[in-house]
Amino acid sequence: MTGSLVIAGLGPGADRMVTPEVTAALALATDVVGYIPYVARIAPRSGLTLHPSDNRVEMDRARAALAMAAAGQHVVIVSSGDPGVFAMASAVFEALEGAPAWHALDIRVLPGITAMLAAAARAGAPLGHDFCCINLSDNLKPWEVIETRLRHAARADFAMAFYNPRSASRPDTFAQTLAVLRAECGPDRLITFARAVSTADEAITTVPLRDATPEMADMRTVVIVGNSATRRVGRWIYTPRRAG
Amino acid sequence: MTGSLVIAGLGPGADRMVTPEVTAALALATDVVGYIPYVARIAPRSGLTLHPSDNRVEMDRARAALAMAAAGQHVVIVSSGDPGVFAMASAVFEALEGAPAWHALDIRVLPGITAMLAAAARAGAPLGHDFCCINLSDNLKPWEVIETRLRHAARADFAMAFYNPRSASRPDTFAQTLAVLRAECGPDRLITFARAVSTADEAITTVPLRDATPEMADMRTVVIVGNSATRRVGRWIYTPRRAG
Repeated sequence: MTGSLVIAGLGPGADRMVTPEVTAALALATDVVGYIPYVARIAPRSGLTLHPSDNRVEMDRARAALAMAAAGQHVVIVSSGDPGVFAMASAVFEALEGAPAWHALDIRVLPGITAMLAAAARAGAPLGHDFCCINLSDNLKPWEVIETRLRHAARADFAMAFYNPRSASRPDTFAQTLAVLRAECGPDRLITFARAVSTADEAITTVPLRDATPEMADMRTVVIVGNSATRRVGRWIYTPRRAG
Repeated sequence: MTGSLVIAGLGPGADRMVTPEVTAALALATDVVGYIPYVARIAPRSGLTLHPSDNRVEMDRARAALAMAAAGQHVVIVSSGDPGVFAMASAVFEALEGAPAWHALDIRVLPGITAMLAAAARAGAPLGHDFCCINLSDNLKPWEVIETRLRHAARADFAMAFYNPRSASRPDTFAQTLAVLRAECGPDRLITFARAVSTADEAITTVPLRDATPEMADMRTVVIVGNSATRRVGRWIYTPRRAG
């Protein structure tokens, strides 16, 4: 009996942004694995076992999913957004690294609409020129690495998207981030806070950096900082296609 | 009569990656506007006029689409991938900037699966940690800007994705890019060439920088360079979630 493992992106929240290939993979699954709120998006049905698990157990979840696939199950690991952007795909390959017996498994990664692109679309086109994407969670790296990346990104004049800007366990990182950005980019640079994009709780706010406060972000927010040319046009924010 | 303009992303090529909201917008359209090969993906039907146009006429295309929407048509501008990543969304807002009378139009941007994330999914998870995204076309910016961004990205230890790496009209930019990357990242850094992802012509190759040649890329290729920790596991490439 040959099992399979699909690592699938559910997009930012709305079903209208789930790709047909992800929907098809879910329809064939025997087991769906993932963080509790993402598994909650999957409709129960006969023949499907849901395996919701808590945050911060990514490696346990990856190994359990691989073990089920090796045992012949058809497993889908669900991530919010895109599975390759600060989500489960990297954890699965990390788990594979220690387990050569699993290297021949049928594994597929199915992309999804990642939060920064859903947020950018709602705001206009703030990522319309060169940009970077930084996970502000310092669970997985020290603040010094984040600060170095912020300064290089500012000096390269990248627009920037930040995932996981703020949590109760590390309230200071985002305040420090705003301070670095103000120093590097000046007070007029536009910053967009996009919370819970595509859900009923969606809220999108753009302000100049001088008016940005840490409380404007939480763990459901993706933050986008423009480059030096990013501007408003009507109710929209956009970054021109030309440099400077 | 109230018209509308939707700026929609078709994803990298396969219909299985087109989101339901984009499919729904196309079903309601009276007019579809875009670059010839993207409009060719839309099935003709009664009541729908297709407006294919050549490359490098983005501003004319944006203004024509806005004018049709202002005249009461339901217009969809199609981009490959995501419309906010080096595609038509930014051009539309640039066209709006000079035309306040159009600011009240019903405009929506619908995200799509952008090429770098489709390519990353096929390769494994090379963008699983902080990364940047650079358009190597020097039609819209001088080489000096590209070089500065490459050096900052390397020193920040970002993984990198490159769009439009190479064309017949500017054969040298990508060779120069490879030279900068070798100097900054060393010969062992992994680089992935992903051509025509999700189509019948798909081809994905990963080599160390020492073996990369300009001919490995063309305009249908997205190029992904790993960070200092990016590695192979079995047939996959991935970037660990932790820094360093």
